[in-house]
Amino acid sequence: MAATEATKAADDAYDVIVLGAGPTGENLADRAHAAGLSAVIVESELVGGECSYWACIPSKALLRPVTARSEARRVPGLSDAADVALDSSAVLAHRDAFAAYWKDDGQVRWLDSVGIDLVRGQARLAGPRRVVVDGGRVLSARHAVAVCTGSRAVLPNIPGLAQARPWTSRDATSAKKVPGRLVVVGGGVVGVEMATAWRALGASVTLLVRGDGLLPRMEPFAGHLVAESLAEAGVFLRTGVEVREVRREAPGGPVTVVLDSPPGPGGPGGTPSDEIIADELLIATGRAPRTEDLGLETVGLTPGSWLDVDDSCRVKGVTGGWLYGVGDVNHRALLTHQGKYQARIAGAAIAARARGVPILESDRWGAHTATADTLAVPQVVFSDPEAASVGLTAAAAERTGHRIRVVDQDLAAVAGASLYADGYRGRARMVVDLDREVLLGATFVGPGVGELLHSATVAVAGEVPIERLWHAVPAFPTISEVWLRLLEAYRG
Amino acid sequence: MAATEATKAADDAYDVIVLGAGPTGENLADRAHAAGLSAVIVESELVGGECSYWACIPSKALLRPVTARSEARRVPGLSDAADVALDSSAVLAHRDAFAAYWKDDGQVRWLDSVGIDLVRGQARLAGPRRVVVDGGRVLSARHAVAVCTGSRAVLPNIPGLAQARPWTSRDATSAKKVPGRLVVVGGGVVGVEMATAWRALGASVTLLVRGDGLLPRMEPFAGHLVAESLAEAGVFLRTGVEVREVRREAPGGPVTVVLDSPPGPGGPGGTPSDEIIADELLIATGRAPRTEDLGLETVGLTPGSWLDVDDSCRVKGVTGGWLYGVGDVNHRALLTHQGKYQARIAGAAIAARARGVPILESDRWGAHTATADTLAVPQVVFSDPEAASVGLTAAAAERTGHRIRVVDQDLAAVAGASLYADGYRGRARMVVDLDREVLLGATFVGPGVGELLHSATVAVAGEVPIERLWHAVPAFPTISEVWLRLLEAYRG
Repeated sequence: MAATEATKAADDAYDVIVLGAGPTGENLADRAHAAGLSAVIVESELVGGECSYWACIPSKALLRPVTARSEARRVPGLSDAADVALDSSAVLAHRDAFAAYWKDDGQVRWLDSVGIDLVRGQARLAGPRRVVVDGGRVLSARHAVAVCTGSRAVLPNIPGLAQARPWTSRDATSAKKVPGRLVVVGGGVVGVEMATAWRALGASVTLLVRGDGLLPRMEPFAGHLVAESLAEAGVFLRTGVEVREVRREAPGGPVTVVLDSPPGPGGPGGTPSDEIIADELLIATGRAPRTEDLGLETVGLTPGSWLDVDDSCRVKGVTGGWLYGVGDVNHRALLTHQGKYQARIAGAAIAARARGVPILESDRWGAHTATADTLAVPQVVFSDPEAASVGLTAAAAERTGHRIRVVDQDLAAVAGASLYADGYRGRARMVVDLDREVLLGATFVGPGVGELLHSATVAVAGEVPIERLWHAVPAFPTISEVWLRLLEAYRG
Repeated sequence: MAATEATKAADDAYDVIVLGAGPTGENLADRAHAAGLSAVIVESELVGGECSYWACIPSKALLRPVTARSEARRVPGLSDAADVALDSSAVLAHRDAFAAYWKDDGQVRWLDSVGIDLVRGQARLAGPRRVVVDGGRVLSARHAVAVCTGSRAVLPNIPGLAQARPWTSRDATSAKKVPGRLVVVGGGVVGVEMATAWRALGASVTLLVRGDGLLPRMEPFAGHLVAESLAEAGVFLRTGVEVREVRREAPGGPVTVVLDSPPGPGGPGGTPSDEIIADELLIATGRAPRTEDLGLETVGLTPGSWLDVDDSCRVKGVTGGWLYGVGDVNHRALLTHQGKYQARIAGAAIAARARGVPILESDRWGAHTATADTLAVPQVVFSDPEAASVGLTAAAAERTGHRIRVVDQDLAAVAGASLYADGYRGRARMVVDLDREVLLGATFVGPGVGELLHSATVAVAGEVPIERLWHAVPAFPTISEVWLRLLEAYRG
C-alpha cells in the first residue's frame, strides 16, 4: 500500500485532467492519450456515464423491440403473429444487460487497456490547472482540464412535485417494472421516446405538453406524425397544458397531477382545472449543466452555469486557456454523438496546443473546430415512426438569414417505402441554400429512416453541391430513393 | 375513328422515340418531354417493364416480410411470437398487388397524365431515325431514338434444360405457389434473393454455384456472410459445381438436375456425378440484351449485341448521333436505378443537343455525363442479412491502378448494431484513395444496412474528402456509427 501511495503521489501531475467519464470524457482522454499526452479521468459515479446506464443505451434497448414489432405488423404473412403484446419482462431483462446491470467493470477495463488513469470521487477545481478529489487528493494539469460532466434533468418549480418523487430520464430508462398508469410531462425527445416505450410495454400513458406539439426543435411535421402514431398506440396526448400541482399522499401510492387547462372562451380568469391520477410521473422538461460542485468559482466562473466555449471547446475568459468544456456542459448540442465529436475535436486541439501548434480561431470545418455543432447536428428520435434530422430546419435557416428553398416529399409515394411497410406514412424535407446551392438541412420521418439520415449528414457537412447530389444514385427500391424525388422537385 | 387515324398520321413524327416502357424508357421520355420535346414510347409488353412486374418490385415484395420476420426474431419480447412460418398465401397475394396483377393501367395513366404518347407493338428500326411498329405504322424521330429495351435472362447451353422449362427471374418473382423443392442455379443477386425468399416461404432450396462463393461482384465477405445465413435458414449451398444435364420427364412433374461435382484427387478424368430431384429449377446465371429484333442491322449494328455507348449514352459509330442506348442494353450497370439515372442524363443530353448546345465528351460529373456508372454504382441485395455496396471494391480499385487503403470494421462492435438485433453479425469496408484522400467504395453487410448505403453513395459521388467526413457525425446509437469506427481506424 505504501508503494502504491508513493506512486500515486508521483502520478498526480498529468498533461490532461478530464472531469467525467461519460462517452465525452472517455473520448477526450482517449484522443489526448493517443496524441502522446498523459490523461486521468475523475468520475464520481459510473464510468460510462449517463448514456450507458440511463439514456441512449437503455432507452434504445427498450425501444428497438417496439419498432421491430411495429414493422413486423406492417408486413403481410406476419402481421397477425406480430400483433401481440411484447413480453415486457424479456425486454426489461435485455435492457438490464445492455446497461451492464449498472456496473462499470467493462468500461474500467477499457480505460486500463488504453492506459488512461481513473480516479473515483467528486472533483473540484482549486484554482488554475488544479483539481482536488473528494477534498483530498490533488491533481495538477500541465496542459488542460476538460469538464465533461454532462447535464442532469431539471424539475420545474411545481408545488408538490419534488415530494412526489417523480421519475426523471434516469428512472424512466432504468425502471424495474411497468407502471400501470404513467403520466409523462414534456414533448421533447425523452418524453416522446419514453411514452412510446412504456406504452408498448403495457402502461397506460398520458403525455402532457405545454406547447402545441411534439418534438418542437424539428420540422413541424415530425411532431405531427409522431403524435398521430402515439394516439393510435393508445397514448393520451394533451397539448397546451401546464401542471399546476402534484400530490402523492403515500410513497408508492398513486400520484395526482393537477392541470391548468387552456383558458376557455371566458379568458384566463376562468381556467378550469382537472386532475389525472397515475402510478408514476415522468418529468422530461429540461436539462441543467452538472457544474454546481466543480469549484468553478475558484477560476472566476459561476457554479451551475453552462460553460461558454469557443469552437475548439475552450472555455472563454479563463486566463491561460487551459480549461475546456466538452459535451452537454457547453450547451452547444446536448447529444451523446455530438459530445463525442467535440471530444475528438477538443482532444486534437489540446494536443496541438501542447505541441505549440497555433490554432486558428475560426478554421471552418478544420481539425480543431467543431463546426458541425452549429451546421450539421444529426438527431434520430427512436419513436414509431422514427424522426431524423440534420442541420437547419426551414425556420432556423430563415431566422439565420439564409435565402432558402424548401422541398417536401410524401414518403408513401416512394416505392421503397411502400414496400417497406403496408400503409407507410412519412415525410421528408430538404432545405436548400439558394445562394450556394447546397443543403442546409434535411428531415425524414417514417419507419426505417434512422439509417437514412447519415446520407443527409454527409451532404450537409460535406457541402456537396446539389448538382453533384444528382449523381448520388439511390438504390432501387430503397427508402433512400426519396432523395431522387426531392432533387427532381428542386430542379423541376 | 377517321379523325383519330388522321391525327395519328400527323403525329408520326416525334422529337424522341423511345423503345421500351420500363423505368428507363419512362424516365427518358419524361425528361425529354419536360425539356419541351415531343416523345413517344413503343412497348410490346407491359408498360412499367421488367422492374415493375418481374424483378425489383415483386422480389422486394416477397423479401420484405422475410427481413421483417428475421428482425422481429432478433429482439427480446417478440422473438417467440415471430418465430413462425410466414403465411405464404398472404405474402404472394401482397406480391400480386404490388405487381398490379400484371396489368399496366396505372402506368398508362401516368404516361397520359404527363403527355407522352404510347404505341403498343414490336418496334424495329428501319434505317436512320425511323421506327416501324409491328411491320405497319412508321414513326420518325427528329432528334433521337433511344433503345431502352433492357435485358432478358439467358439459359446456358445445358442438355435438356430448355425442354425442362426452368424458371427464370420472371417465373421466380411471379410464381403463384411455393414449390416443395427448388433448385437455384447462380449465386448472384437473383439467385441469392430468390433462394432467400422461397426458402422463407416454405420451399426446400438447394443453391448451386459454379464459383467458390456468392455475390462475386461484391467484397468477398458479403458472400461469406450471406452464405452463412442461408445455411442457417436451411438452404443447401453447393459451390464449385456445374449442371451437366437436366431432365423433366413430364410437364409439371419433378425435374432432375445432374451435376458435375468438383474433380476429386484423381484429377479431372474421374469426375463423379450426382443428381438432385426437385419440383422447380431456377436459372439465374446471366442476362442478354433485348436487341435481337430491333432492326439494328438497318443502321449498321449487330442484332442481339450490347450497345456500345459514350458517357451520354449515345451509341458509338452511328452517323448523325441520333441513336441512344440507355439502361441494361448498354451493359454499363444492369440495375433499375442506374437505368433511370442514365435516362435522366441521356434525356438531358438529347434535349441539349436538340437546342444546339454542345456537349463535352468527358465533362466528369457534368449534367450530361453518366459518371456514376463507372465510379459510384450502388447496389442493395435484399438478402438476410442485407448486402450493400457502392463504388469500387478493393480488388477493382487495385485492378484500375489506384493506390488504396482498405479499412474493415466488425459491425457487431458498433453499439447501434448490437442494439438493433441480438447476435448481430455484419461487416463494413471502406476503400480509400490514398492520393486524393477520398472514398472509392464502401460495402456494408448486416441487418438494417440497406438505407445506410446512401451515405456512402453521397460520399463517393460527392468526392467528400476524408477529413471532412470526420465532421459528418453519425447519430448515436445508429448502425451508421460504423462510419466513425472506419474513420478512426483510417486515421489511427
